[in-house]
Amino acid sequence: MHAEQLRALLEQVRAGALEVDAAIERMRHLPYEDLGFAKLDHHRALRHGMPEVVFAQGKTPEQVEEIAGRILQTSPNLLITRAGRPTAERVQARFPQVEYFPLSGALRAWGDRTILGKGRIAVVSAGTSDIPVAEEALLTAEVMGNEVEAVYDIGVAGIHRLMSARERLLQARVVVVCAGMEGALPSVVGGLVSCPVIAVPTSVGYGASFQGLAALLGMLNSCASNVTVVNIDNGFGAGYVASLINRL
Amino acid sequence: MHAEQLRALLEQVRAGALEVDAAIERMRHLPYEDLGFAKLDHHRALRHGMPEVVFAQGKTPEQVEEIAGRILQTSPNLLITRAGRPTAERVQARFPQVEYFPLSGALRAWGDRTILGKGRIAVVSAGTSDIPVAEEALLTAEVMGNEVEAVYDIGVAGIHRLMSARERLLQARVVVVCAGMEGALPSVVGGLVSCPVIAVPTSVGYGASFQGLAALLGMLNSCASNVTVVNIDNGFGAGYVASLINRL
Amino acid sequence: MHAEQLRALLEQVRAGALEVDAAIERMRHLPYEDLGFAKLDHHRALRHGMPEVVFAQGKTPEQVEEIAGRILQTSPNLLITRAGRPTAERVQARFPQVEYFPLSGALRAWGDRTILGKGRIAVVSAGTSDIPVAEEALLTAEVMGNEVEAVYDIGVAGIHRLMSARERLLQARVVVVCAGMEGALPSVVGGLVSCPVIAVPTSVGYGASFQGLAALLGMLNSCASNVTVVNIDNGFGAGYVASLINRL
Amino acid sequence: MHAEQLRALLEQVRAGALEVDAAIERMRHLPYEDLGFAKLDHHRALRHGMPEVVFAQGKTPEQVEEIAGRILQTSPNLLITRAGRPTAERVQARFPQVEYFPLSGALRAWGDRTILGKGRIAVVSAGTSDIPVAEEALLTAEVMGNEVEAVYDIGVAGIHRLMSARERLLQARVVVVCAGMEGALPSVVGGLVSCPVIAVPTSVGYGASFQGLAALLGMLNSCASNVTVVNIDNGFGAGYVASLINRL
Amino acid sequence: MHAEQLRALLEQVRAGALEVDAAIERMRHLPYEDLGFAKLDHHRALRHGMPEVVFAQGKTPEQVEEIAGRILQTSPNLLITRAGRPTAERVQARFPQVEYFPLSGALRAWGDRTILGKGRIAVVSAGTSDIPVAEEALLTAEVMGNEVEAVYDIGVAGIHRLMSARERLLQARVVVVCAGMEGALPSVVGGLVSCPVIAVPTSVGYGASFQGLAALLGMLNSCASNVTVVNIDNGFGAGYVASLINRL
Amino acid sequence: MHAEQLRALLEQVRAGALEVDAAIERMRHLPYEDLGFAKLDHHRALRHGMPEVVFAQGKTPEQVEEIAGRILQTSPNLLITRAGRPTAERVQARFPQVEYFPLSGALRAWGDRTILGKGRIAVVSAGTSDIPVAEEALLTAEVMGNEVEAVYDIGVAGIHRLMSARERLLQARVVVVCAGMEGALPSVVGGLVSCPVIAVPTSVGYGASFQGLAALLGMLNSCASNVTVVNIDNGFGAGYVASLINRL
Amino acid sequence: MHAEQLRALLEQVRAGALEVDAAIERMRHLPYEDLGFAKLDHHRALRHGMPEVVFAQGKTPEQVEEIAGRILQTSPNLLITRAGRPTAERVQARFPQVEYFPLSGALRAWGDRTILGKGRIAVVSAGTSDIPVAEEALLTAEVMGNEVEAVYDIGVAGIHRLMSARERLLQARVVVVCAGMEGALPSVVGGLVSCPVIAVPTSVGYGASFQGLAALLGMLNSCASNVTVVNIDNGFGAGYVASLINRL
Amino acid sequence: MHAEQLRALLEQVRAGALEVDAAIERMRHLPYEDLGFAKLDHHRALRHGMPEVVFAQGKTPEQVEEIAGRILQTSPNLLITRAGRPTAERVQARFPQVEYFPLSGALRAWGDRTILGKGRIAVVSAGTSDIPVAEEALLTAEVMGNEVEAVYDIGVAGIHRLMSARERLLQARVVVVCAGMEGALPSVVGGLVSCPVIAVPTSVGYGASFQGLAALLGMLNSCASNVTVVNIDNGFGAGYVASLINRL
Repeated sequence: MHAEQLRALLEQVRAGALEVDAAIERMRHLPYEDLGFAKLDHHRALRHGMPEVVFAQGKTPEQVEEIAGRILQTSPNLLITRAGRPTAERVQARFPQVEYFPLSGALRAWGDRTILGKGRIAVVSAGTSDIPVAEEALLTAEVMGNEVEAVYDIGVAGIHRLMSARERLLQARVVVVCAGMEGALPSVVGGLVSCPVIAVPTSVGYGASFQGLAALLGMLNSCASNVTVVNIDNGFGAGYVASLINRL
Repeated sequence: MHAEQLRALLEQVRAGALEVDAAIERMRHLPYEDLGFAKLDHHRALRHGMPEVVFAQGKTPEQVEEIAGRILQTSPNLLITRAGRPTAERVQARFPQVEYFPLSGALRAWGDRTILGKGRIAVVSAGTSDIPVAEEALLTAEVMGNEVEAVYDIGVAGIHRLMSARERLLQARVVVVCAGMEGALPSVVGGLVSCPVIAVPTSVGYGASFQGLAALLGMLNSCASNVTVVNIDNGFGAGYVASLINRL
Repeated sequence: MHAEQLRALLEQVRAGALEVDAAIERMRHLPYEDLGFAKLDHHRALRHGMPEVVFAQGKTPEQVEEIAGRILQTSPNLLITRAGRPTAERVQARFPQVEYFPLSGALRAWGDRTILGKGRIAVVSAGTSDIPVAEEALLTAEVMGNEVEAVYDIGVAGIHRLMSARERLLQARVVVVCAGMEGALPSVVGGLVSCPVIAVPTSVGYGASFQGLAALLGMLNSCASNVTVVNIDNGFGAGYVASLINRL
Repeated sequence: MHAEQLRALLEQVRAGALEVDAAIERMRHLPYEDLGFAKLDHHRALRHGMPEVVFAQGKTPEQVEEIAGRILQTSPNLLITRAGRPTAERVQARFPQVEYFPLSGALRAWGDRTILGKGRIAVVSAGTSDIPVAEEALLTAEVMGNEVEAVYDIGVAGIHRLMSARERLLQARVVVVCAGMEGALPSVVGGLVSCPVIAVPTSVGYGASFQGLAALLGMLNSCASNVTVVNIDNGFGAGYVASLINRL
Repeated sequence: MHAEQLRALLEQVRAGALEVDAAIERMRHLPYEDLGFAKLDHHRALRHGMPEVVFAQGKTPEQVEEIAGRILQTSPNLLITRAGRPTAERVQARFPQVEYFPLSGALRAWGDRTILGKGRIAVVSAGTSDIPVAEEALLTAEVMGNEVEAVYDIGVAGIHRLMSARERLLQARVVVVCAGMEGALPSVVGGLVSCPVIAVPTSVGYGASFQGLAALLGMLNSCASNVTVVNIDNGFGAGYVASLINRL
Repeated sequence: MHAEQLRALLEQVRAGALEVDAAIERMRHLPYEDLGFAKLDHHRALRHGMPEVVFAQGKTPEQVEEIAGRILQTSPNLLITRAGRPTAERVQARFPQVEYFPLSGALRAWGDRTILGKGRIAVVSAGTSDIPVAEEALLTAEVMGNEVEAVYDIGVAGIHRLMSARERLLQARVVVVCAGMEGALPSVVGGLVSCPVIAVPTSVGYGASFQGLAALLGMLNSCASNVTVVNIDNGFGAGYVASLINRL
Repeated sequence: MHAEQLRALLEQVRAGALEVDAAIERMRHLPYEDLGFAKLDHHRALRHGMPEVVFAQGKTPEQVEEIAGRILQTSPNLLITRAGRPTAERVQARFPQVEYFPLSGALRAWGDRTILGKGRIAVVSAGTSDIPVAEEALLTAEVMGNEVEAVYDIGVAGIHRLMSARERLLQARVVVVCAGMEGALPSVVGGLVSCPVIAVPTSVGYGASFQGLAALLGMLNSCASNVTVVNIDNGFGAGYVASLINRL
Repeated sequence: MHAEQLRALLEQVRAGALEVDAAIERMRHLPYEDLGFAKLDHHRALRHGMPEVVFAQGKTPEQVEEIAGRILQTSPNLLITRAGRPTAERVQARFPQVEYFPLSGALRAWGDRTILGKGRIAVVSAGTSDIPVAEEALLTAEVMGNEVEAVYDIGVAGIHRLMSARERLLQARVVVVCAGMEGALPSVVGGLVSCPVIAVPTSVGYGASFQGLAALLGMLNSCASNVTVVNIDNGFGAGYVASLINRL
């Protein structure tokens, strides 16, 4: 970060020449830290009120470890998604406070557990195989300061299971629904609840599922009007937007 | 048909040299009538136990009229699918017993209403816009000799409507389900009933429905194991197979 | 609606055997009115707190008129989307309070203008050609009881126009972004604001836009984490979800 | 399963307050057993009259072993599909009655060999490479209580082989046809027989077969009206529906 | 054409300085006539031994008339494909020797009926709706100097019709097979005959035929090794290559 | 093979009751040998005048070895395509006359080198990476009894290389052209020569080549009329059809 | 435009406080004129050194007329692309200096014909049907101040035509190549010339051309390294970039 | 190379019968060196003024080493792209002047560092994961004789980072932009600068990025007119064309 920009700003504040609110507003748009291979943006926490999140796929364990170190210097919370076991081991060796979730490949430091969300977020999965994606959404929503409830394995072909979960769904303020194969669950859930539903197609399936394309198209064409969609397997994105909504 | 082949066959029967069952078996594989632009196959009625069906799309009103005339010479029942109004008017002018269904574009003569099916076939539609396809399935199943029940407009986003139709679905021996958009209804119905479900994706929808592709992929990936699928908008095919199954 | 169900329920309420809240909760799941060709669900208003919306495409002017009549008996507000001019003329002839918006094809009765949303919804369009979709979102959000601001024609190739609209975007509680062609605008807007962004791909473009597929894929792959996506040209869906969020 | 629900039900039966048929009907919709990572549904056997089937792909050997154990406590029959050798070895080590079929990856316990189907199911493969999928269909149909006949390697380019199998096909009550590449065999078989044909596209082929897409599209467009289609490589689904039909 | 190039060439021939064969060889690569909007290549007749063919689609009646006039100045034969009725009327008004075939939209002058092919070309169609494409192939092969036989309406679902045409197919030196929907016929024909089979997918079908894509993929994946494929609806190309082969 | 059928046939011949030509004709349609996992068809050699060819991909080395043994009992020539090194070693260990071509994965016994083709077949490749596919075509054409010439590495971006190969191309009776990436070479070669051109798209390329789809589409849309197309990477099919044509 | 911003800027210039170059640099990023339905950006002319271009498709004749009027107030040059005849007539009625090109649908005012490009731009078309797209590129390049040469109808199947145009291509500083069907021409031209080649796929073709997709993929996979690609039918974009390059 | 052709040419030059310029022009089209498995074209250096570049993917280390040796005999510069570590080690062992860049897999000899470009080329990457592709473009542009500046990690969701790089972009003569996911960066950069922008879609992303298809479509539909596109991950092509433009 350009130190002189920040110093000038803060001196104005100290001198009473700038209101605190105005200073925060300006800081939202100050620059970022240069790491050589990736530019960290601690101010995203200010802008979105969210900690920095690292997408580990395509990065070496060394790169992830270094980024994690930088973030943990200024934040008690950290989320790393799609990390393999070598990356997990390297990060955990240096930062014992980081927990690893092998199903989804997430690494999480959760030092600050303040609840920021106004209600509960329900994270739903259609089948057992969709749980890794659901877990990524759940961990994201939790580390962002939300009370989260997991409602797993309630696929549409067993409508009775779904109906028996109805009360828990009705009590949520936002619902994230992860489903592969035909991706029909968000439509059914969307018809049951009154709140926003964020649908996550998963790449679960084979043959004509085309790695999640069938589920994605199904969700985009949902006949329930309260459904929006994120990318295939993007549990993080769903948990993130659910958090934004739940803070409103 | 090669007259000499048939005569030889029938003389063998008259002479007692050929059992009736054996004669029918052989006749199954005798040839067909030549019409110049289309070869009729009256023996399909023997083979499949079904009247000849005419797909009017891409044929002129004159061609359809001529084919219809040939069929009605030997059969009291006739089904013509995907006929526009000009074709309908021409056929009805000459054959007053033929009824026109403008929603689906079907023309039907239904002189022989013998019930051949063992149980009832339920024909389900997800939304109002899917009714034309459902109607094609329903008319097909009826003219093939089945008791049919229409259960329309029970899309998955209103699961309560669907649940209130549950009893009627459970009483069917075969269920045909027509749905566009996300095509989720066959999965939910498939989970409710124990009988075979024939799913018909419809081209209803817009944008990422890609003219029924989304519904088709959804149905092929159904998590309900009792679901099989036919082509987009192929109400006829679904009604036809439902009839075959219901006669077993 | 099954009258006896409702009567039984209300008698319980009158007798003091059922709390009002509990009664409303049960009524949420009572059945619907049968119209022959389409089943209206006045209770959706109770469930989602939203008026019934009619998708006119694929319905005859007569059908739309009849549905509109039923809705207007119980609701001062009505939204009909994708209506052609003949449908508009027929509906307006009978219901003079209905206004027609030819760009988007929307018909709207807006008798009850109570503001239910907590903040403002910004509806953004990338180019002039995306305005019909944006207008559908805007009209939906308004009739659902929201203060809405239109921010049109700020495509990413003119980043200065976009930057000059920054303040108005930052003041919104939810942002709807409609864009065709490469569909890049939601990513840029998503990076500027802290609130949820609902992206609507439009079918604007030619050649390799493939009727909105390029924009749809772009939005699903957005590098901004606060973006979710609805179907191509689905302005209604975006306005609807934005309303749900804005009421929280 | 919620024990109290079941106990209450059965006590009613014992007390003569509930007919057996009515009890079975109610039990159809009772809940399921919770396993942590997957919810078993022993009642599916009651609903569909079929044993529970496990899709092993994406599950660890330990998970499959545990699920298998639960099922075998209440059922003499078990079918596990898409199991690799490690899973097979683990399951067989504990349950010696389970047989492994490496071609299709199926594991099967077949303690109860009661025949429930009314006729014979023919399972047809176009080429040698389609046999794994055909075997999955065949094993499924057998364990569901059907007499099954395999008719392998009768591709359409050798029409004489196909014709010589004609008699065996005509004697079947349902025919399952597995074919990759151009997927033409179901159309030809469909024209030969009068019974329902369930087509299974396989991912056999290369280049423009696009992992079974060519065969899938071919089958959906079949000019034979008695053909319905399941997902690519879904031998299980085809065997399952064939069983349902054969029991009618 | 650059006159001086041709004159120099011919003077060499007259002077005995150049053999006739050598002159023809050189002329093969001389340039072409400029028409402003389209460059005719009379030498293609020399190179391929074929008359110039005009693809009328996307050209105005005037353009087609002018091109036809140029060709008919030097050739008794002419083939124009994909011409609408206005183009046909304009061309026929000026050149009465030109015949119009409305089914395929072909216009043909056939002044020189010399037979150049060594055997017979069979042109096969699967259904009635494929005849327009088959006709284009047939007319092309005829005008190129071949004996041609039409074998229409022998789709794979009626294998008996196909078998009864077997002798006629076996007598052909090249077979052209036109089929839409699942496009299975070339595979079956390819297995019956020993000669090259040229497969023409047609855009006949609906839904998942995707305008001929299903048939195209099916033919490319044919399990019969003697099958090659041309573009969807490209009857001309098939007739052209069949002619080249039949002249060998 | 049903021995009695063949014996009856041959006795008729010996008795003078059947001409030799007629006997051969009948034998063309006699049945085949059963191997358990694959049905060999020695009569294909009679029907197409070609040795049996084995597609090794998806078969175990043991299966390939067994099939090879059966074929070599009756034929001096054998072609096995897409064989990995383990299969090659196993087959060569038992049949030393078999040669292995690691580039294309072909195994070939070439005991009978009689030339049956009337002219020369040119096998062309666009780039170095297309040579494996070209080699498969070349080996096929050779073992089928043709004189073959390889013309490699003459891609369209170096038109001078292509032009310098012009004479060799003009002397061929059939040309096979293998090209990946944009697949443009068959069009250019097709314009240069007068004979049939068989185009083989290869999966060479990356990104938007989509595993050969770009080349396939390019070839199907060739503006040269003498081009037909086979499946992606199907060198065998191209060599096979080229042989059929060259024997005419 | 915000008048005060511009005034302040110019006063600084007049006062000598701001160099002219610096002022131009700042003006590059000043805002735009608001038209209600479309925001004109006269400063684009400053930024890119290009006149404003109007894409008429999807705009009413009235809208186009109004935009044209605004532009012509400040610029002697104007290009409107994809205009139908009604739009053309309306615009020409008011602005007689505007010329209409019906083939491409372009409208052009060309008052200022200053040559700004350093060399010549060659615009090449493969076939007659590609000329509309080529014309759009040519008109664009001309109105942007370039000397342009049209080289039409030199498709790759007639390599001799192409070779005879070689000298003209070699003299160009940039080459635009428009081609439909297989889209092979840019590769061949790219191999002949040393300068940048801009490839424009056109939607010319049928069947497996998929509205230009085949040509697009072919060009993206070009084996010539000097080729870049624009959208299908985007003649304007190609002419625009060619102008930018030619001015360097 | 055909020695006699070259000798004849040079003797003409020595004899004064041919100007040097004319000789160079002719030499441009002389043939190439034959290597058995790949034909080198040293004259490409003359034609395009560029060294030979080797695409290592699909070639063995031995082949790459041999080709590299040939090139280094006549050129101080060499670029090998997409080389794995074994190839790199083999080439570096023999040619110590070759440097390896493991991120992009490039090998480069850069003996002649003469600057031939007129200005600077900016190579931009949207995210960290796009750097390998950007590096390939950068190395290509450098070895072709250009001053290059890397501007990495300025994705559109952080528009402030992008704006802070604006000055460096404005100083470039050509900009190469590499981006995966939604591929929006070229549109934004294209709107900021006045020079040509070459967009490189990368295969970075997951789910609906479909290996770079989303980015590719986005770039082809860019609303910025100064953008052209190359194949997915084709950093080399972008660097190559940027060099051609920068030399003008």
